[in-house]
Amino acid sequence: MGKTKPRAMRAVEEVDISAVRYESPSLQAPHLSGFSLRAFVWLMESPILGRLLTSILKSQNNITRMLQDTVIPERPMYRPEYPPQEAEHGVVVLGDDTDPVVADHIIAAVEEWSNRKPPMPMLIYFDADDLRKQAEASTKRFHQGNPISILDGIFIAIKDDIDCFPYPSKGATTFFDKIRSVEKDAVCVARLRKCGVLFIGKANMHELGLGVTGNNPNYGTARNPHSIDRYTGGSSSGPAALVSSGLCSAAIGTDGGGSVRIPSALCGIVGLKTTYGRTDMTGALCDCGTVEVASPLASSVEDAMLVYSAIAGSRPMDKLTLRPSPLCVPNLVSPDNNSILGSVKIGKYTEWFHDVSDPDISNTCEDALNLLCSNFGCQIEEIILPELEEMRTAHVVSIGTESFCDLNPHYRAGKRTEFTLDTRTSLALFGSFTSTDYVASQRIRRRIMYYHNEAFKKVDVIATPTTG
Amino acid sequence: MGKTKPRAMRAVEEVDISAVRYESPSLQAPHLSGFSLRAFVWLMESPILGRLLTSILKSQNNITRMLQDTVIPERPMYRPEYPPQEAEHGVVVLGDDTDPVVADHIIAAVEEWSNRKPPMPMLIYFDADDLRKQAEASTKRFHQGNPISILDGIFIAIKDDIDCFPYPSKGATTFFDKIRSVEKDAVCVARLRKCGVLFIGKANMHELGLGVTGNNPNYGTARNPHSIDRYTGGSSSGPAALVSSGLCSAAIGTDGGGSVRIPSALCGIVGLKTTYGRTDMTGALCDCGTVEVASPLASSVEDAMLVYSAIAGSRPMDKLTLRPSPLCVPNLVSPDNNSILGSVKIGKYTEWFHDVSDPDISNTCEDALNLLCSNFGCQIEEIILPELEEMRTAHVVSIGTESFCDLNPHYRAGKRTEFTLDTRTSLALFGSFTSTDYVASQRIRRRIMYYHNEAFKKVDVIATPTTG
Repeated sequence: MGKTKPRAMRAVEEVDISAVRYESPSLQAPHLSGFSLRAFVWLMESPILGRLLTSILKSQNNITRMLQDTVIPERPMYRPEYPPQEAEHGVVVLGDDTDPVVADHIIAAVEEWSNRKPPMPMLIYFDADDLRKQAEASTKRFHQGNPISILDGIFIAIKDDIDCFPYPSKGATTFFDKIRSVEKDAVCVARLRKCGVLFIGKANMHELGLGVTGNNPNYGTARNPHSIDRYTGGSSSGPAALVSSGLCSAAIGTDGGGSVRIPSALCGIVGLKTTYGRTDMTGALCDCGTVEVASPLASSVEDAMLVYSAIAGSRPMDKLTLRPSPLCVPNLVSPDNNSILGSVKIGKYTEWFHDVSDPDISNTCEDALNLLCSNFGCQIEEIILPELEEMRTAHVVSIGTESFCDLNPHYRAGKRTEFTLDTRTSLALFGSFTSTDYVASQRIRRRIMYYHNEAFKKVDVIATPTTG
Repeated sequence: MGKTKPRAMRAVEEVDISAVRYESPSLQAPHLSGFSLRAFVWLMESPILGRLLTSILKSQNNITRMLQDTVIPERPMYRPEYPPQEAEHGVVVLGDDTDPVVADHIIAAVEEWSNRKPPMPMLIYFDADDLRKQAEASTKRFHQGNPISILDGIFIAIKDDIDCFPYPSKGATTFFDKIRSVEKDAVCVARLRKCGVLFIGKANMHELGLGVTGNNPNYGTARNPHSIDRYTGGSSSGPAALVSSGLCSAAIGTDGGGSVRIPSALCGIVGLKTTYGRTDMTGALCDCGTVEVASPLASSVEDAMLVYSAIAGSRPMDKLTLRPSPLCVPNLVSPDNNSILGSVKIGKYTEWFHDVSDPDISNTCEDALNLLCSNFGCQIEEIILPELEEMRTAHVVSIGTESFCDLNPHYRAGKRTEFTLDTRTSLALFGSFTSTDYVASQRIRRRIMYYHNEAFKKVDVIATPTTG
């Protein structure tokens, strides 16, 4: 506890954004495994030494300084609030179409991938009979000339933290089905089922979504189909591997802090984190946070848009309180395609863009931006996003707290040791956050939302490398 | 950390409210003062023993069991959300009127009360010259036949945690003006000033509102005008004493957990806790919580309605996100008064009603209810409000966290010892709440809101003794 004057933030409206200097974060991720990892977890979880260690870690990572020693003038934003936005041009609601299918190739392919050496456990649950039954029903609809929608007969995988009846939902833990049973589809799955989608099973993931590699000691790790010595990224590792390997056209993951976007980027597919509140999270393991949403992974932008259109629809209570504006998607089928892309202003925070572990990453992204400009007439505008470190801190406190709140009663009732060591480390840290850390994080979020709204007054999209 | 099965709550919709049994809480409030109080505060604030002690206190008070060992099925309600309500009959928006004034009597009376033995420090800041200037301007308006509103020339006191320029706002601490300056009126004060209200000064209070007695070692304690050996109750002790003694027609306090209602009840005046979000808290010390609102204390229901009508008006952002329904107040001036009161159904949870320290309290309240029934034709309906202990716990975690979040940077920067021992004890407890305690409390709040909505389907008001 310092005796110096507390740090005071200026009100966001008074921050001269153009004068903000980018600060490169000094990130350290020490490598622990085997005995040292076990000893570390034991320390983190012990009542007194754990408090001491987590308090050192919180302090070293500036969490204490940012959330406890800083006067933040903004009111907390407990849930994302959207002020009314101006209507956008070039957007439209998608129509329907039809398409035929076959299931046996998929079944054979899943079995082939699962029996590979090293194994590729992309799915945790897969039932060939169930899939055949779904496919037969769809085929019949096509033979009768009555497919339900453009998605009828399309194979989609569901991440293991979203309910897809009759499979259990374990969040890739070993035991979660014992404390939470699945009686029906999650709302987003039910919507897809109504469109005639065929569900190939429950996809592997980082345990409970609490990590971004996809490494899973419980079921094995879904490897990157482009290079099986590499991670897919996570937490939606199975969904990304399935789509990237061509087994499914799309998958549904959940994204609270990159869990769809990161594995999509690492596997070379399209991942969309949908707007908070735009999809109904009822039937997902974490359905009561303020950051996590159900989101599509797909092999193309068009497919991602199709699946998003099918799962979109706010929870009834959110319709009343969050008041989402009508759903619209870009009009990609316009006869004059350039008229849309040509008007797009791409925001780029150059210093942040290039703050990556290897310049190859940002140079490749730079090339992609240049192609968008030269081929379609997009324009690049320099922007500044202040307080990125604060954003990361507020994010980890929000997502950590909201995840842990659901798990805490089970954790405290003896399930602690049934989690992986990786998860246990995260939970010990999350358990050290104080209630004022949480509220201070929601104040930070109001600031961050303001800065993003300011940026979006100048640009239509913000481009960054997905992972640095 | 227990190894037993976690307690699981049933979804609120599945709770059979009619079968809920009232559980009388076993409250203990040990008396500490002098050395034992100092030793207790030292213990609470010490890094390791403090953790141990707060964790024992949290466990003894069931906070740990309720918030950490319980599976709560509801999503958190970070801010009160109001589903659309049916329109009510017999309500109307109040009109204007006129009334004359004089200031010197007030000035003499304030000075007389302040010089009494024992002293009655009802006001922390009082400036006779400023008050005379305000009164002269009002008198001039009346002489010109142009009073601004029915409140023109009315004396109102402002609690010391709401900005009233040019006075400082200290929240009855010794130092808060040094870390937060006042440059203009709070929004609710500015609204009253526009109506011609005369502000007699800043009223005393329990330090920072963190207590319900009004005991204040910094400025002395505003005593109960009905019996100067008794407390006014708090935290709006000064406002209640001022109105109760007849010095002001009304005062503005803040209420997050009874801070207006308790002292109003103990001083025999009318206190209204207004609906969350109905008043704009900009310019109040605690303007970013989810429980605290600016509220009137007055000598009659009519005066409370007048002042409420003047200060009401949501923050612009809250208008967008909370969508308050139009402001309305009961139509008390209807020619047939009975037609309104006669239709009022009063909800009474009899066991809770009588769970008081002295049966005199609830018997007196019972008599009042019976008068309402016999004279006006009101009807009493038995109701049940489940989970009252959970409600109290969720409340203390919410209000404690939200108050402490504002103070924390200063507390950590060395101001800790400048708070009273009473405040320090509260802050040490609030600092022990975890972030999951906070989110779990917001889940409890969703349940409590449901139970209250269920009760309000049967009744129009819920009557209880204000303090037990």
